Amino acid sequence: MKLLVTGGAGYIGSVVAALLGAQGHDVVVLDDLSTGHRDAVPPSTRFVHGTVREDAATVLASGFDAVLHFAAKSLVGESMANPSLYWGHNLGGTLALLEAMRITKTPKIIFSSTAATYGEPESVPITESAPTRPTSPYGASKLAGEGLVSAYCTGYGFSGWVFRFVSILGERYTHGHVFDFVRQLRADPANLRILGDGKQRKSYLYVQDCVDAMMLALEERPHGYQVLNLGTDEYVSVEESVSLITRVMGVKPRLSYTGGARGWVGDSPFIFLDCAKIRALGWMPRLRIAGAIERTTKYLLDNPSLLDRRS
Amino acid sequence: MKLLVTGGAGYIGSVVAALLGAQGHDVVVLDDLSTGHRDAVPPSTRFVHGTVREDAATVLASGFDAVLHFAAKSLVGESMANPSLYWGHNLGGTLALLEAMRITKTPKIIFSSTAATYGEPESVPITESAPTRPTSPYGASKLAGEGLVSAYCTGYGFSGWVFRFVSILGERYTHGHVFDFVRQLRADPANLRILGDGKQRKSYLYVQDCVDAMMLALEERPHGYQVLNLGTDEYVSVEESVSLITRVMGVKPRLSYTGGARGWVGDSPFIFLDCAKIRALGWMPRLRIAGAIERTTKYLLDNPSLLDRRS
Repeated sequence: MKLLVTGGAGYIGSVVAALLGAQGHDVVVLDDLSTGHRDAVPPSTRFVHGTVREDAATVLASGFDAVLHFAAKSLVGESMANPSLYWGHNLGGTLALLEAMRITKTPKIIFSSTAATYGEPESVPITESAPTRPTSPYGASKLAGEGLVSAYCTGYGFSGWVFRFVSILGERYTHGHVFDFVRQLRADPANLRILGDGKQRKSYLYVQDCVDAMMLALEERPHGYQVLNLGTDEYVSVEESVSLITRVMGVKPRLSYTGGARGWVGDSPFIFLDCAKIRALGWMPRLRIAGAIERTTKYLLDNPSLLDRRS
Repeated sequence: MKLLVTGGAGYIGSVVAALLGAQGHDVVVLDDLSTGHRDAVPPSTRFVHGTVREDAATVLASGFDAVLHFAAKSLVGESMANPSLYWGHNLGGTLALLEAMRITKTPKIIFSSTAATYGEPESVPITESAPTRPTSPYGASKLAGEGLVSAYCTGYGFSGWVFRFVSILGERYTHGHVFDFVRQLRADPANLRILGDGKQRKSYLYVQDCVDAMMLALEERPHGYQVLNLGTDEYVSVEESVSLITRVMGVKPRLSYTGGARGWVGDSPFIFLDCAKIRALGWMPRLRIAGAIERTTKYLLDNPSLLDRRS
């Protein structure tokens, strides 16, 4: 298949692009390198340095089977400080991409959304039909993107798979709590500062498991619009996560807490998704959360240069 | 209270502004007159000719208790043809307004959303927790606006009431099927062309009943973010609506149909909301759908100049 991966120089996008290239697909990566890195783009793909808003239509003009859309700003805190940036990049980009797909008759989109669209849930595990009440402009901009994908699927006969994922861990991981904790502990193994009260419960998914689900979306019918949760059927507290990371690193830091049920404005204290829908399609994660945290910690220790650049 | 009504020269906004002015509130109307009309702005209010995007911050700087946000593009078909227009006006406007509220510490927003956020429902009546899968950029832009209101309520402690209404009928009504049918029948009482197969089932609400619900939102606690359906606990088919309109007009046209379950791209063939949540707060509609259709038909016949201008 001929496939466009937007944000293919970023964390998840680059892993997806590498796998698709290895499978023999004809893959084009479109990335503006505003947070991604040129050296993350797999050699098996063609790279276009440009923005989704300005360049998607030109790239798609040669005819594509599907788009995997990862290009987005993805930091909750940054979105609180600068919501316009998030609407411009995340929603403006998605709108431009869908318009380009309509004009070039590109029939399918796989859209990377987020569990942050749910906000703070009324009950867990959260099913795909739960109310969507995002608590940050980041979550709201992804929800808006979903709405657009839905509208284009209905209006123009696209096929659209929306994945709402939990936080992703694994190789090439570049931001999140494991990153922050490993970086802190490398600088000072005796102290660790934790945002919130450490009781927040989160679910995580290993990046290769995430990518497997995307592959399913490329191969499987049905057509039309659908939303799928993507996560593991479990969660860990921040404190449990700290135990795993410090054991791998062999350190015993003194823990201090900033306090409060939420680590930051827009943080959700409990994320735990019901993933029965994607499991019914035959997908199953290979790693449990503990394994994903341990593997990510080891990966960062083996690649310390990643800790010095933030994206 | 000191209140800002955006879109207060438009259909619902002008009725809300008039009632608030009559109740003695200090009301400012902000409207760019792109679809509203200067003569619809109630004399009991102050009028600012400007856009939400450019002028909300300046207007709110003098200190307001709440904003009632109606300013929006609201035509499904137009949104299919020109999605960017809808994202710019509806989402760009709402973002600018929320930013202005944050900066000026305006504590409350009442946001007019739409049942179109649900798209085509899996079951009826539709509760507020049903999945939101809009089938047009119009519906998607309103859903995105809800997401933003949700994020700002959580992030900055605003209070936000989101109303998802069905189509509104009544005085000052300016577009929709009753408008189209009355206009067609005044031009040619012998023929009526109906979009779709006439079997579409829709729910409607009388404009004064809609306004009553907004008043409740101004007076009632609780704080925080909430979503409320607003409609009648019934629906009518397009054909039933035709019977009511032609009886009031005393005409017996030959009916022709464009065919198909949907009247247009993005049309939802069945809209019927569960309104238990707003009813539990003490609200009840005064008019049933048939009464609202009859009253609107008579109003248009008494004010035929409205039929000549489309907004």
